[in-house]
Amino acid sequence: MSKGKMKVAVVGATGYAGCELIKILLMHPEVTITSVSGKVEKAEKISEIFPIFENQLDLVCDNADVPAISKAADLIFLALPHKVSMIFVPDFLKAGKKVIDLSADYRLKDTGVYEKWYGTKHTSPDLLKDAVYGLPELYKEEIAKANFIANPGCYPTGSILGCAPLVGKGLVDINQIIIDAKSGVTGAGRAASLALNFAEVNENFKAYKINQHQHMPEIDQELSKVSGSKIEVTFTPHLVPMNKGLLSTIYFTLKEETNTSGLLALYKQFYRAAPFVRVLDEGIFPETKNVNGTNFCDIGIKVTGKRAIVITAIDNLYKGASSQAVQNMNLMQGFDETAGLL
Amino acid sequence: MSKGKMKVAVVGATGYAGCELIKILLMHPEVTITSVSGKVEKAEKISEIFPIFENQLDLVCDNADVPAISKAADLIFLALPHKVSMIFVPDFLKAGKKVIDLSADYRLKDTGVYEKWYGTKHTSPDLLKDAVYGLPELYKEEIAKANFIANPGCYPTGSILGCAPLVGKGLVDINQIIIDAKSGVTGAGRAASLALNFAEVNENFKAYKINQHQHMPEIDQELSKVSGSKIEVTFTPHLVPMNKGLLSTIYFTLKEETNTSGLLALYKQFYRAAPFVRVLDEGIFPETKNVNGTNFCDIGIKVTGKRAIVITAIDNLYKGASSQAVQNMNLMQGFDETAGLL
Amino acid sequence: MSKGKMKVAVVGATGYAGCELIKILLMHPEVTITSVSGKVEKAEKISEIFPIFENQLDLVCDNADVPAISKAADLIFLALPHKVSMIFVPDFLKAGKKVIDLSADYRLKDTGVYEKWYGTKHTSPDLLKDAVYGLPELYKEEIAKANFIANPGCYPTGSILGCAPLVGKGLVDINQIIIDAKSGVTGAGRAASLALNFAEVNENFKAYKINQHQHMPEIDQELSKVSGSKIEVTFTPHLVPMNKGLLSTIYFTLKEETNTSGLLALYKQFYRAAPFVRVLDEGIFPETKNVNGTNFCDIGIKVTGKRAIVITAIDNLYKGASSQAVQNMNLMQGFDETAGLL
Amino acid sequence: MSKGKMKVAVVGATGYAGCELIKILLMHPEVTITSVSGKVEKAEKISEIFPIFENQLDLVCDNADVPAISKAADLIFLALPHKVSMIFVPDFLKAGKKVIDLSADYRLKDTGVYEKWYGTKHTSPDLLKDAVYGLPELYKEEIAKANFIANPGCYPTGSILGCAPLVGKGLVDINQIIIDAKSGVTGAGRAASLALNFAEVNENFKAYKINQHQHMPEIDQELSKVSGSKIEVTFTPHLVPMNKGLLSTIYFTLKEETNTSGLLALYKQFYRAAPFVRVLDEGIFPETKNVNGTNFCDIGIKVTGKRAIVITAIDNLYKGASSQAVQNMNLMQGFDETAGLL
Repeated sequence: MSKGKMKVAVVGATGYAGCELIKILLMHPEVTITSVSGKVEKAEKISEIFPIFENQLDLVCDNADVPAISKAADLIFLALPHKVSMIFVPDFLKAGKKVIDLSADYRLKDTGVYEKWYGTKHTSPDLLKDAVYGLPELYKEEIAKANFIANPGCYPTGSILGCAPLVGKGLVDINQIIIDAKSGVTGAGRAASLALNFAEVNENFKAYKINQHQHMPEIDQELSKVSGSKIEVTFTPHLVPMNKGLLSTIYFTLKEETNTSGLLALYKQFYRAAPFVRVLDEGIFPETKNVNGTNFCDIGIKVTGKRAIVITAIDNLYKGASSQAVQNMNLMQGFDETAGLL
Repeated sequence: MSKGKMKVAVVGATGYAGCELIKILLMHPEVTITSVSGKVEKAEKISEIFPIFENQLDLVCDNADVPAISKAADLIFLALPHKVSMIFVPDFLKAGKKVIDLSADYRLKDTGVYEKWYGTKHTSPDLLKDAVYGLPELYKEEIAKANFIANPGCYPTGSILGCAPLVGKGLVDINQIIIDAKSGVTGAGRAASLALNFAEVNENFKAYKINQHQHMPEIDQELSKVSGSKIEVTFTPHLVPMNKGLLSTIYFTLKEETNTSGLLALYKQFYRAAPFVRVLDEGIFPETKNVNGTNFCDIGIKVTGKRAIVITAIDNLYKGASSQAVQNMNLMQGFDETAGLL
Repeated sequence: MSKGKMKVAVVGATGYAGCELIKILLMHPEVTITSVSGKVEKAEKISEIFPIFENQLDLVCDNADVPAISKAADLIFLALPHKVSMIFVPDFLKAGKKVIDLSADYRLKDTGVYEKWYGTKHTSPDLLKDAVYGLPELYKEEIAKANFIANPGCYPTGSILGCAPLVGKGLVDINQIIIDAKSGVTGAGRAASLALNFAEVNENFKAYKINQHQHMPEIDQELSKVSGSKIEVTFTPHLVPMNKGLLSTIYFTLKEETNTSGLLALYKQFYRAAPFVRVLDEGIFPETKNVNGTNFCDIGIKVTGKRAIVITAIDNLYKGASSQAVQNMNLMQGFDETAGLL
Repeated sequence: MSKGKMKVAVVGATGYAGCELIKILLMHPEVTITSVSGKVEKAEKISEIFPIFENQLDLVCDNADVPAISKAADLIFLALPHKVSMIFVPDFLKAGKKVIDLSADYRLKDTGVYEKWYGTKHTSPDLLKDAVYGLPELYKEEIAKANFIANPGCYPTGSILGCAPLVGKGLVDINQIIIDAKSGVTGAGRAASLALNFAEVNENFKAYKINQHQHMPEIDQELSKVSGSKIEVTFTPHLVPMNKGLLSTIYFTLKEETNTSGLLALYKQFYRAAPFVRVLDEGIFPETKNVNGTNFCDIGIKVTGKRAIVITAIDNLYKGASSQAVQNMNLMQGFDETAGLL
């Protein structure tokens, strides 16, 4: 049945991103999942961990074993926590496998910055130069040629896609970029935690890690690259009582007054070849429910004088993690960029 | 300001029931809170644990110390987990304090049943006979004379109030009592747990401990007492994605056909002296939002031939725990039964 | 791209079932959507009604026009409200189209019962005999030969699948079947309504239409057919504060005592050829999140003496409506039964 | 029982603010509710509209009749929609009653601005000068002497309290004030609306009325007053899938670099006499659950260089509407400012 399909493995299959990744890969026309693994106390069927896969995926999930996985699959997705990913990545690359790493471990090119924000030394700094930042809307060609992808974080995806056209064209005061972001709860990962208990989160709204979230240096790095100048944004993430969805409200100070339709035209032009960015018409703005379960990033814009407000919405587990990883795989393998994606 | 007010202590102040109990006691006209304690790693202000109490209650929460608490207060509320409560209760009683225990430790009169359902030996079985089951609608007089109350569980409160009139009058087949109960998430307590994480509970509905919840023997014991015959109900609890509220849908097989208005009249008569039971008019049924934040139990009834459906709603943390404890205190102290309660 | 694919139309595309149906059909390998229609004030793009379809489905939604739709498509899905569906069905059948009707209009075979529960005369009673009840687990062969399907209601789907094995084998007291069902809010349809406003539903739980829901006679009709004797169940639906998911807790009185494993074996045997029924292992019970977004019906069982508790879970908009309609289409067209379905 | 208590009326009792206002007034030690009214199709008991009041408030709610209400009560709360309030206010004032108006009708002092934002001519512009803006933290003395209060909107309350110290001291660039606000759903009022249906709002997050919400000119007016210079803020409201709570994340550009502790000291000093403003310690930030059901406004601050982020949280129906109205009443009547308030 899966004859001729590419064999893929999911390492880190017990988290939310891993679960969604499996769902997407199960429907993908070009691949077959041959291995799932993750941190487990004892080996058990993936359908015991996520009963939704009963009757759909008959694989046992055990702790990751690089030789066995490398034998079973040609492309490896790692949906592991940061710091854990860099334990496995070097060996998979050595084994000649293609790797798409959903963690933060190979996104920051400056090991000092990594150490500051993630609190640990990087153990394979030599590989950083090989990792292509997997944001297809900016780096489609590099991704197509890559063997190793550092898949972007959820907040950076929504933020960078909202900023790149204005920053790239040099139209804004780069010292006055404010990103007010709001994410569903799956963004915090799948683990026991009082702070994430239903009764603590439901009927509650809060900001957290105000101007000190570890995704901020990733945004800064990428926008600085786009701009050519060093950018440090103001970034405040918030926790929304919902499972999925990420909305970013971004405030810019324009160098020159313009109007909404002018900026919309710029964004539509910038993303004309991006099948998963939808720049909405004037007066229409993103809602997370319109992108949930899809790989889309929706963008809406409102300009008043020199103030531009750009709003982006993505599914934090899809375009912010798993479906973007599949989009990267599609590009790496020469599949249709949209294969298996909604 | 609190001159002449009775001094009360809350032991187990760090859980949801303890938190709500403090809220109620803060507004109560006859008492003042002089001590809060609970399992903590180090002493900290109660407003650091529950910031809602900042500017409202200036007490430090430390691990429970019986002599200090006994010195500070005349009546002790214990909102501790079962098994933990019986460590403290004997000493408070020995110190001559009035005790209202919100745990299950002194509810079951048969130590064999306790051991079976709670998995541990009872360490003070001699005190069981002194503990009055604190359901004021059935035992108001005993409560008024008691020094020691075993405050009912949330499921038993909603179930027993729904069953007592029919069971007490011998109008139903006692082998065919089915209680299908649905509770908000705070019923599971305040602790780190993957199963209770927001993203696991939200947009999900499930049954759990099907016909084997530890509240079932408590319901059986109390209904058997009401009936005079041994009763074993069928009991299925469910978890609802909401913080608070408990609805019980109870199915009876009547011995004789009757109609809705006849049963409603029976219930209104039965609860005529109960200020916190509201028997709703024909065609109107309980919703948890109408009792949340109150000490009310709402009851609605629908009869079709020999099938009677009785639906009750309570706030699981109020009438199912904290406000019922305050109602019991009011009765024990000779305060107005409704003092400080909505 | 869609060469050789069957052309299908969705009439009633503006409701929740219509929206989900479009999502499923967009990913289906054998069909292409050529027409969407529904009650609209003026024609507009379907992506204006449901922005999630922007870039995915470029069709205009107008009020239904039978000749135009019949010209555009070979199989017609009607996701219309009851009473509205029977205005269109006769004309589509006359035009030689295959019809899958998701409304209740052709499910009840007794027009008197229809009139009693839906409050209106049936306008095409002659067509009732042609409508095959589209529950593939019971009527796969009839569906495969049918041109006209009455697609089951959500509550009946969950209830009948939970009851059929026990009722069919005559193992239970058919006068003591109690179905306590709990549904997400999309079951109530997509319309302005104060009772369905977020702030009325969120943090609330209630029963409604107690023992008088219009899906009850449909359950009675189908279980009577399975049993050979007239069955009238007790049925209480409840509203859960979540978008999707339907859990039914069903209580039976067994004629003879048995045990859980015995009943599970019976159910597994009964559904051995049903790819979308998953009978769970002993001690495991359904949760709605494990079926949401899928066509599965999960079943768990617990037996205590003569009391059997059977719990079923479905996605009310998928197996309870849209994906079941697609499963029916697959059977009618000779596609793989699971094509395009998770 | 209510001897000596002041008689108050609630006009507009059928909305969410009216409902919460009644709850607060029922527990208030100094007043008794003698009249409730609102737009109803026919007179009915308030406990039929809000069943939570069964057994608690035995009043009939009919359409507002000024002479009857004026006879029954000495102080009138109007919790009516804007445009409706100004139909009633002049007559109550003429009747010599004290009036606390929760609508927007008398908040904007410039009738041109009112007309622009509310789309209608003001019908009693002569009364605008008599209406004291009821934000006690800024105008306690004026309120104490007033007969007529324009109670602030929810967004303005959270915004102004967060801005006043910095703006009043002239420490920020007043052209760079950005308010990113997030509100629970009750803020939108209690009415049938597809956009507010549970299934449309749940699991969704969106911005709305981006930089064109009708509360924006109210914020501008009040901050301009505080500043002495004309201020126009950037203001983006968002809808959070929760019933209650309002968090505002406010971004300032400081004229001079400072640090978090410096600004916190300024805010603590500014609000030293405000019993309902809690300036949180460094590193602690507001969450809506810590203020829900209370009259508190919590404030947290984070400074990085010249960027100051001030976050405020209130309960949109309490400090943002009903409990603030009661705080105003307390001041007008010379009651303790905190009487009846948590």
